[in-house]
Amino acid sequence: MAYRALDIDSICDYLSGIEEIQAFFGTEEIEASEIGDGNLNFVYLVRAVSDPSRAVIAKQAVPYLRIAGEGFPLSRERMTYEIRALRTFKALAPDYVPDIYYSSEEMSLLVMEYLGDHVIFRTGLLEGRQYPRFAEHISSYMAKTLFHTSSLSLESSEKRALMDRFSANTQLCKLTEDFVFTFPCMEHETNDNGNVKGNPLAEMIFADMAFKERVLELKYKFMTQADALLHGDMHTGSLMVNEVETYMIDPEFAFVGPFGFDIGALLSNLIQNYIHHDIVTGNETHKLWLIETIEETLRLFAQKFVALWDATERSALMIPGLLSSESKKNYQQKFMQGILQDTVGFAGCKMARRIFGIAGVTDIRGIEDPALRAQAEQRVFEIARGFVMEYDRIGSVSEIIKRIKG
Amino acid sequence: MAYRALDIDSICDYLSGIEEIQAFFGTEEIEASEIGDGNLNFVYLVRAVSDPSRAVIAKQAVPYLRIAGEGFPLSRERMTYEIRALRTFKALAPDYVPDIYYSSEEMSLLVMEYLGDHVIFRTGLLEGRQYPRFAEHISSYMAKTLFHTSSLSLESSEKRALMDRFSANTQLCKLTEDFVFTFPCMEHETNDNGNVKGNPLAEMIFADMAFKERVLELKYKFMTQADALLHGDMHTGSLMVNEVETYMIDPEFAFVGPFGFDIGALLSNLIQNYIHHDIVTGNETHKLWLIETIEETLRLFAQKFVALWDATERSALMIPGLLSSESKKNYQQKFMQGILQDTVGFAGCKMARRIFGIAGVTDIRGIEDPALRAQAEQRVFEIARGFVMEYDRIGSVSEIIKRIKG
Repeated sequence: MAYRALDIDSICDYLSGIEEIQAFFGTEEIEASEIGDGNLNFVYLVRAVSDPSRAVIAKQAVPYLRIAGEGFPLSRERMTYEIRALRTFKALAPDYVPDIYYSSEEMSLLVMEYLGDHVIFRTGLLEGRQYPRFAEHISSYMAKTLFHTSSLSLESSEKRALMDRFSANTQLCKLTEDFVFTFPCMEHETNDNGNVKGNPLAEMIFADMAFKERVLELKYKFMTQADALLHGDMHTGSLMVNEVETYMIDPEFAFVGPFGFDIGALLSNLIQNYIHHDIVTGNETHKLWLIETIEETLRLFAQKFVALWDATERSALMIPGLLSSESKKNYQQKFMQGILQDTVGFAGCKMARRIFGIAGVTDIRGIEDPALRAQAEQRVFEIARGFVMEYDRIGSVSEIIKRIKG
Repeated sequence: MAYRALDIDSICDYLSGIEEIQAFFGTEEIEASEIGDGNLNFVYLVRAVSDPSRAVIAKQAVPYLRIAGEGFPLSRERMTYEIRALRTFKALAPDYVPDIYYSSEEMSLLVMEYLGDHVIFRTGLLEGRQYPRFAEHISSYMAKTLFHTSSLSLESSEKRALMDRFSANTQLCKLTEDFVFTFPCMEHETNDNGNVKGNPLAEMIFADMAFKERVLELKYKFMTQADALLHGDMHTGSLMVNEVETYMIDPEFAFVGPFGFDIGALLSNLIQNYIHHDIVTGNETHKLWLIETIEETLRLFAQKFVALWDATERSALMIPGLLSSESKKNYQQKFMQGILQDTVGFAGCKMARRIFGIAGVTDIRGIEDPALRAQAEQRVFEIARGFVMEYDRIGSVSEIIKRIKG
């Protein structure tokens, strides 16, 4: 089936011709509305006319950046990787990934569960809402997906086959290389230059060579360290939550990269929400919950990851009879420390890039009072710099928490 | 052109039908003889009947391990990677790679320059011969091929495309994972069990958990650290030399892996030759030359690698204006130290595996006197263990040399 771009007028007809969608809606008539929040893709909410609670999300990539228009070409192959990643993650951690009703790499089309009872995690956090089961959920999701796509679980040929399925996700990996690790650390046309001009913090960061050397060290890890299949863009806008459920969405940046990158991305976003509330709302209950959530997420992730590892006798890395069980424990401990350190380093990079880079987070860039915003940016950079400069000397979760509290 | 296995009776006819081979031999009649030293493949020397100095080497992979027979299947795809690697390396370092006259991935066939005036480097070294230009050559070869296939030289998409061309070389990568990093450290049916039985050194190694934890750390790097396109099996049997020339051959293990793996493989082989002469021949001139060669190789490699880097303004890693030139120097220094440390670690693994693993080196396993052989093995392990346990604390080439001299 050759690719063609669908629109609000053609989407329902098109979907009605697909067996899996017929199975979902039966003989019901359906209608579609466009959901405006996709930067990259067209996203439609498709419902049964007689019962709007029966609904799916249809997402199609176009061969350009939706938010910027046809003048900004971006290969629609990104949807290929989103489909592949979503299916891989769904198989490994079904509770935390939306149901997939239909997908077509040729049509760059994905039809999946409508999460009508959930909100974007960032939005909830900005409103000061707490999600008591989040740490439990996200630690399970990350432990399962990262462990089971790594050489600690897969056999050698399975791991290389997995890499193969994602290694051509070049354009989006390059976006991260440029917009996370490079441009935000220097004068660049893509930066938030309205804020950069005459800003002493920007001047300081752009001249901070010791910091940039370390950022490049982490960029190099991002480019070359093939630990596991990552979401690749695991910020609080890529999570949908409510009191009882947590879902990961939008994994179009997926590729095989360093363990610490996803966890670091999440950590950086939680910290930026903490700074937001520290400086803007002074909501102490929420701040306390955030600290606990960070602590729990990191602790539970490590615990669950090691438990999966303990249950694995044979993988590309290890076979029975090679190490004693005590020795395996030593090895695991050092390995987990390495993941924690990378997590801290990547969290630092991901925080720093939000200050002057092209894409800010609402938590900081959305602060309307310029003085408060500058104060928040200052605080983001202090933590980010500490993380980046000393990530490989961080030994524990409590050290991370101490730095966040300042 | 569908695959068919050639043999001594069909090879000349087949080659005569290929335009590139016609261009080489003109209208001369050709004849072939089988060269018996290929473990994996069939290798033929093909000459003009009237002038045997006009000759080529034709190499064809069969879908099994040649040395073991059809009962030991091994995908002939290995020749695909040998062809791709040889062509890539030839383009980057033409002086150190044989000319390629013809290749066919479909036929798993490679026709290349006959190095009739050269000997296998290991053979020369065992005879106590010295090759005054070797360090100069091999350092150029490694600097050029490793630098130009890394993210320090390539753009992001070029690097991922390169990885793509080699990422399915699964079977041979797995051989290394198993036979270098795993089986030689434990009781295993594939080991040189005639020597293992009742051997206190074997008993010691197999029980040395601290050592094996570190070997696994390096195995993990081998599996996941995608620095550059490696030869993948750079021992002294993969090099053909004479007084004035050095050629790399047999890169069928090629894949994108850690910089230090090839350099470490070479280092380990030079050290084992040093130990051979120390214990068997007492040839002090040769030992001195080996030490100088190791020193020069490592020093010149780093020098040339950095020179190529200095001449590179833009790559996946860096763009102009990001770092000051002083800062780039700091970054490079730390980076090169990382390569040196990995080199030492991998050299240690590669030495240790030669003691009891399936494939020994003649330098050690060929020592006929059992007492001398045991003494050599002891010495190999002493250095190997030091390297593996302390690779990430090694700061300089002189430290490496001190450890070799013992």
